[in-house]
Amino acid sequence: MPTRTAREVADYVGGALHGDEKVELHTVGSLERAEPGALAYAEAAYLPRVPATRASCVLVPPGEPPDRTVIVVERPRVAFARAAQWLLDRHRPEPGVHPTAIVARAAQLADDVHVGAWSLVEAGVTIGRGTVIHAGCYVGPGSRIGDDCLLFPRVVLYAATEIGDRVTIHAGVVIGADGFGFVFDGERHLKVPQVGHVAIGSDVEVGANSCIDRGALDETVVDDGVKIDNLCQIAHNVRIGTHATVSSQTGIAGSSTVGERATIGGQVGIADYCRIDPHGIVGAQCGVPSRKRVPAGEVYWGTPARPLRNIKKQQFYLNRLPRMADDVRRLQAEIEELKARLDRDRESAQ
Amino acid sequence: MPTRTAREVADYVGGALHGDEKVELHTVGSLERAEPGALAYAEAAYLPRVPATRASCVLVPPGEPPDRTVIVVERPRVAFARAAQWLLDRHRPEPGVHPTAIVARAAQLADDVHVGAWSLVEAGVTIGRGTVIHAGCYVGPGSRIGDDCLLFPRVVLYAATEIGDRVTIHAGVVIGADGFGFVFDGERHLKVPQVGHVAIGSDVEVGANSCIDRGALDETVVDDGVKIDNLCQIAHNVRIGTHATVSSQTGIAGSSTVGERATIGGQVGIADYCRIDPHGIVGAQCGVPSRKRVPAGEVYWGTPARPLRNIKKQQFYLNRLPRMADDVRRLQAEIEELKARLDRDRESAQ
Amino acid sequence: MPTRTAREVADYVGGALHGDEKVELHTVGSLERAEPGALAYAEAAYLPRVPATRASCVLVPPGEPPDRTVIVVERPRVAFARAAQWLLDRHRPEPGVHPTAIVARAAQLADDVHVGAWSLVEAGVTIGRGTVIHAGCYVGPGSRIGDDCLLFPRVVLYAATEIGDRVTIHAGVVIGADGFGFVFDGERHLKVPQVGHVAIGSDVEVGANSCIDRGALDETVVDDGVKIDNLCQIAHNVRIGTHATVSSQTGIAGSSTVGERATIGGQVGIADYCRIDPHGIVGAQCGVPSRKRVPAGEVYWGTPARPLRNIKKQQFYLNRLPRMADDVRRLQAEIEELKARLDRDRESAQ
Repeated sequence: MPTRTAREVADYVGGALHGDEKVELHTVGSLERAEPGALAYAEAAYLPRVPATRASCVLVPPGEPPDRTVIVVERPRVAFARAAQWLLDRHRPEPGVHPTAIVARAAQLADDVHVGAWSLVEAGVTIGRGTVIHAGCYVGPGSRIGDDCLLFPRVVLYAATEIGDRVTIHAGVVIGADGFGFVFDGERHLKVPQVGHVAIGSDVEVGANSCIDRGALDETVVDDGVKIDNLCQIAHNVRIGTHATVSSQTGIAGSSTVGERATIGGQVGIADYCRIDPHGIVGAQCGVPSRKRVPAGEVYWGTPARPLRNIKKQQFYLNRLPRMADDVRRLQAEIEELKARLDRDRESAQ
Repeated sequence: MPTRTAREVADYVGGALHGDEKVELHTVGSLERAEPGALAYAEAAYLPRVPATRASCVLVPPGEPPDRTVIVVERPRVAFARAAQWLLDRHRPEPGVHPTAIVARAAQLADDVHVGAWSLVEAGVTIGRGTVIHAGCYVGPGSRIGDDCLLFPRVVLYAATEIGDRVTIHAGVVIGADGFGFVFDGERHLKVPQVGHVAIGSDVEVGANSCIDRGALDETVVDDGVKIDNLCQIAHNVRIGTHATVSSQTGIAGSSTVGERATIGGQVGIADYCRIDPHGIVGAQCGVPSRKRVPAGEVYWGTPARPLRNIKKQQFYLNRLPRMADDVRRLQAEIEELKARLDRDRESAQ
Repeated sequence: MPTRTAREVADYVGGALHGDEKVELHTVGSLERAEPGALAYAEAAYLPRVPATRASCVLVPPGEPPDRTVIVVERPRVAFARAAQWLLDRHRPEPGVHPTAIVARAAQLADDVHVGAWSLVEAGVTIGRGTVIHAGCYVGPGSRIGDDCLLFPRVVLYAATEIGDRVTIHAGVVIGADGFGFVFDGERHLKVPQVGHVAIGSDVEVGANSCIDRGALDETVVDDGVKIDNLCQIAHNVRIGTHATVSSQTGIAGSSTVGERATIGGQVGIADYCRIDPHGIVGAQCGVPSRKRVPAGEVYWGTPARPLRNIKKQQFYLNRLPRMADDVRRLQAEIEELKARLDRDRESAQ
């Protein structure tokens, strides 16, 4: 791992250094557990923990800097992410095809590709420079993988999958399996052909054991910069726009679209033919019914999905229900009393 | 791929041909993206798109046929599914056991079985004619697989799994893992024996990364024609009836039964000992509580699951809650006014 | 498999034998499907089925024992679990490294470890006595696995994973993949470093295709005795306390803690920075919002999660809503009538 001085890191992230500019940094850590030699970071709320850390340097937000080696930056977490990418070289295995791997003769691999043990690269595949395919992966016929991608062990790409550059795919992911398309002919479910494919852009990350189905006839599309968490289900013909994020265990059903920069929480269910507009936000466990649209920049929540403010209003009234029931009961009593009083008045008037 | 004329396809699906009966078809496509040589289809709502398609022939519903080569059928999507199965020959690898695969001597493989690279077929296994086992599968001891099955890469069948004919199992599926059965003895969870197995009928399809656990003592059963989507969880001793469908990320807990032709939506949770009767429908994200029964042909939704009409009624009243709260407030005011009026009347009467 | 007499089993579980103490038992079964030679059990509700069983011996609760060979115990299911562990020897493959497996020279394996076909054990790994690693597993660099563990086929452990003794990990599990940590820098999502690891205690079981992510900077911890079902998602920096159980398809987001002996139902979503206190119970499909605490021993349910009694109260009022709407309408009518009556009275008084 490379070693950098606090001064070099400060220059790299564009921050103001206070303290010992020569202290050497070669790793990263949390305030609580970092060892000397590590860079840590502290958002404003965690500044009181800075004095006790063993980290050699801490990224902190503007304000009175603590009396130790710190780098003052506008957004400590962003600077930390950038510095960490620079400080930490993720171990990449040596280029080359492992002797136990099988690469079809009709596949084209750039010179410095790594193909791990017992990985199978089928005919017609092309793999770009610097891409690492770990052990036990399957790359189906006609697939294309770009430069500097990283496939962890046991990834399965069905035929004709397209993947851009700098894409990370975690272990157990399945891309390009058949969509769930059947039509009942009166006696049994006939399979509707699932002969499209999956096209994934660049700078995408797909979490462990997630599934992205091939298009039925056309494409399933995951655009540049999209991040998908573990155990997600992306169905046939879905389109996910640039830099959208999809949290764990979420499912997006057939032909739905998720706009750029949209944020989809965990365990969300988006039914088929929905449209989440750009910058839309769908809260955790939300259920978006078929053909529903979430407008740009709105926050939706609940099942069935509604604007968050509506949900909050409903919660407010729900919480007041017991009191309202009491009010109604009291009103009934008061009306009875009024009636009795009128009866008495009438009687006494007669 | 075989090539058929429009006339041959019309005869095969039992439709009425209009236009050029000799046009050759060798693939399928969507109206929007099909190339010449492709068969497409259009439901009534999409007929306006037919003139612009590049597809050579389109399956259309009854009515005034567009002025191009079309085949008129009652149900275009059904006819399309049937024709596609006939037109498209899914690539099947050559029969034979790959040199890197390991097949136990005590296993019985029909002559034209394919076993892919690094697949392990344990002792006592039998595999029927025409079945294809892709790379990296594990077939546990004593398992039986019927004819013409298709196991995609990295499927795991634990010991004694039974699979019928024409079953498709997608990548990453795990069948026969232990059910989640423990009993707390006061100090720790003891494992309740999970020594049953899984029995799957014919014409079943199981989606990528789904799990079907073995029975605790007896069987977990998936009947003929059942279709299970990706990332589903079928627990120990569950029984799923013929031609039922289970959408993505649904979980069915121990000992529950799903009747024939039932339709289970996505992300549904069915707790243990439930009973979904034949033709029952359970909507997406529905939560069916322990021991609940969904009657035949009914539609249930919500958590806890109730008949859809009840849910809709509840939604109706929920949406009216703010107005009802206003009504109650106004009634209170009116009663106060009435009381005041009575007081005034009495005063003036005195 | 060993054969034991009913007398031996009675002594082992500390029960009172009635009937033939010499009957031989070599397997277990359900009341309905057991064969002769099997031990079964019956909770009180199932005692009427005991006379018809073919099982050779039945564990039954205290009371008038049926007229056949039975063992009376306080808790039949617990005794059954204990006896089954003793009677049934799960088949363990022979010690040794399969010729197709690859074990790095710098890995340390105890003498009687089994490493199955096409499993890859990277440098710096240590594996304890009696541990079985089935076919196609990947054990990342620097991982430590204790004694008597069982890894089913296709388990993936990323680098530096720590696993205690007697841990069972089912097929398709991925441990140590990167957590879902990104920060948006205004243009794109930067990866926040995910360089921690996963530490799993002893006597843990992890269900098929579940995922446990590595800590971002520190650890993700699964303590002794924890049982995790299939298709669960445990995010970075989560801590799960001893003997907690997590049912299928549940997701626990970053930095949340689950206390010892807590019970988490199926399809539960626990957002980030939550705290489930010891012995807390979270019902199926419950959604616990970010930073929420579930107090020790409480039962929470619903989305957003609330105490079960509150949910039940709310359900009660929800179910009464239609009647309440009727009441309000009737009150309105009665007030109108009162007003009219007052008007009439006034008129007649004038």
